[in-house]
Amino acid sequence: MLSCTGYAARSASDPLAPFSFERRDTGPDDVRIEILYCGVCHSDIHQARNEWGNTLYPCVPGHEIVGRVSEVGTNVSRFRQGDVVGVGCMVDSCRECKSCRDGYEQYCEQGFVGTYNGEDRQGRGITLGGYSKSVVVDQAFVLKVPDGLDLAAVAPLLCAGITTYSPLRHWKVGPGQRVGIVGLGGLGHMGVKFARAFGAEVVLFTTSRGKIEDGLRLGAHEVVLSTDKEAMARETGRFDFILDAVSAQHDINSYLALLKRDGTLVQVGAPEDPLPVSVFSLLMKRRNFAGSLIGGIPETQEMLDFCGAHGITADVEMIAMDEIETAYARMLRSDVKYRFVIDMNTLAASA
Amino acid sequence: MLSCTGYAARSASDPLAPFSFERRDTGPDDVRIEILYCGVCHSDIHQARNEWGNTLYPCVPGHEIVGRVSEVGTNVSRFRQGDVVGVGCMVDSCRECKSCRDGYEQYCEQGFVGTYNGEDRQGRGITLGGYSKSVVVDQAFVLKVPDGLDLAAVAPLLCAGITTYSPLRHWKVGPGQRVGIVGLGGLGHMGVKFARAFGAEVVLFTTSRGKIEDGLRLGAHEVVLSTDKEAMARETGRFDFILDAVSAQHDINSYLALLKRDGTLVQVGAPEDPLPVSVFSLLMKRRNFAGSLIGGIPETQEMLDFCGAHGITADVEMIAMDEIETAYARMLRSDVKYRFVIDMNTLAASA
Repeated sequence: MLSCTGYAARSASDPLAPFSFERRDTGPDDVRIEILYCGVCHSDIHQARNEWGNTLYPCVPGHEIVGRVSEVGTNVSRFRQGDVVGVGCMVDSCRECKSCRDGYEQYCEQGFVGTYNGEDRQGRGITLGGYSKSVVVDQAFVLKVPDGLDLAAVAPLLCAGITTYSPLRHWKVGPGQRVGIVGLGGLGHMGVKFARAFGAEVVLFTTSRGKIEDGLRLGAHEVVLSTDKEAMARETGRFDFILDAVSAQHDINSYLALLKRDGTLVQVGAPEDPLPVSVFSLLMKRRNFAGSLIGGIPETQEMLDFCGAHGITADVEMIAMDEIETAYARMLRSDVKYRFVIDMNTLAASA
Repeated sequence: MLSCTGYAARSASDPLAPFSFERRDTGPDDVRIEILYCGVCHSDIHQARNEWGNTLYPCVPGHEIVGRVSEVGTNVSRFRQGDVVGVGCMVDSCRECKSCRDGYEQYCEQGFVGTYNGEDRQGRGITLGGYSKSVVVDQAFVLKVPDGLDLAAVAPLLCAGITTYSPLRHWKVGPGQRVGIVGLGGLGHMGVKFARAFGAEVVLFTTSRGKIEDGLRLGAHEVVLSTDKEAMARETGRFDFILDAVSAQHDINSYLALLKRDGTLVQVGAPEDPLPVSVFSLLMKRRNFAGSLIGGIPETQEMLDFCGAHGITADVEMIAMDEIETAYARMLRSDVKYRFVIDMNTLAASA
């Protein structure tokens, strides 16, 4: 397992050229972070195994990072040594386009720089992520972690948390609304917690009878088995908003039918193939089908502050670094409640 | 050709029982209208030919009706004999559900009663539409036609007009926005006129080189041939709003890609089979894919008043009643600019 920080350099003239490593110094705007915990996101598996066909090896995954500041650059005033901070899916963006100016760096018109497998905007190489001892990140993409939370359980907030918080906030989910969360995994379990914390009436949809009890424990007012056709039929036209966290192919029309007039279903899972959408279902109730991608830096900070104020974290299972392959295998069987987090103390100092 | 008004009765116990006709008297809340003009909508063809499998014969199509009031019921105060009025796609709804109370009768939770082939809520039979000498309609579903407009060219406003006006208003299309209209037919040509009148920068997308000149004449600032891949690529991410008026199967993802962050594509045409939607395209810019169905009674009146104030009507080709089959055949070849309207004077008094 790699423990380098900074970038894997590649030849600018040939993207397939062999990599060499360079360490990155702490520049004037940089924050050096000794990593305490790193969450394990499903994308890590895709990227590590090149399932999206764009992995640049060597690849160090990990974009749910919590750590302690060990060094700051000369321009850095918001952070100081010893602060507990977080880093999510992004470490840079153009910072000039409308989306960046609006605080939606995830929709940067030039594309954000991913925390790993991302191409550095200064040509220093390919970014390496959080399965590592330390990382150096521009202060603009570093988040403050509020006091009083279990830091291991904070790590997944940086991706799974913000990915569900952002759409629930954007579409103004709150009291008086009936809100559905589809799928109880890393994303879905955070969706249930946030929707409940925002005051909505929360209904979890799951295919697993074994998840009913847990859904209720996590905050759902009701759990509906999506395989139960009668139960699904009873929910027709009853929802203001549905957050769909399922990445596998699934029948989206059976969920669109549950929306009221002017209701919105937002997909945060990303099925590989197009989903067939019944236009008739959209027309008959002026329904909306939308997508949402992680969240911007200002709203990620807002989410962390909200979690601090309300005592919200992810439900996690701790693993050692050398258990990562077992963790990947269990994730592929949906056998995790609800996010693996790597204790970075388990990464050997010599690795 | 039929010229009866009111309802075709059917046996309540057997929906397939043979029909008998009854004429409807002008009830206390009713308005009797001598029909001057009736627009020919594509749905008329589907319904006349039972292509949706739900036609109840005998069927009298027509839901773009303009006529003159000949009699009013004792409770009717808003209309009087001689008034020029319109009737669109609906002649009744439950009037009690939230959608009805909100003025969105088209989304009535019990289903609105169509102007033809609709089942009367009082059990009087099946509604018969506007290819007729006269029609009797509850005052709540009768619209006032403003002065100063060509009445034949007003008729298509009652369906094609409101179907495009409603979503453009609902999604607040206006100055400073770049708006796409997909398809130049009965709906699309009204979409171009309204979007232009609302102050947007209007781009028409068409597959027909022959429609470029007309698109510009109707109000589009630009016309893009959707078959021109380079032209389409240049429009990527440039649109605030797109109104898609195409009912045939088509590649919706090529239009979703044209939306800016938070942009919305609204389908008003209703392709029969589900449209495959790339979730990735929705996610990457928080794009919305929605549908919209005609419009409510209050907004239909607002639309007619807007048309009166701005001199907006449909572009029409007049036909006589006995030319309807030729008109249907031409519509199926998209050979009409842009709506056929039947002059009801051509319907023989004896028919």
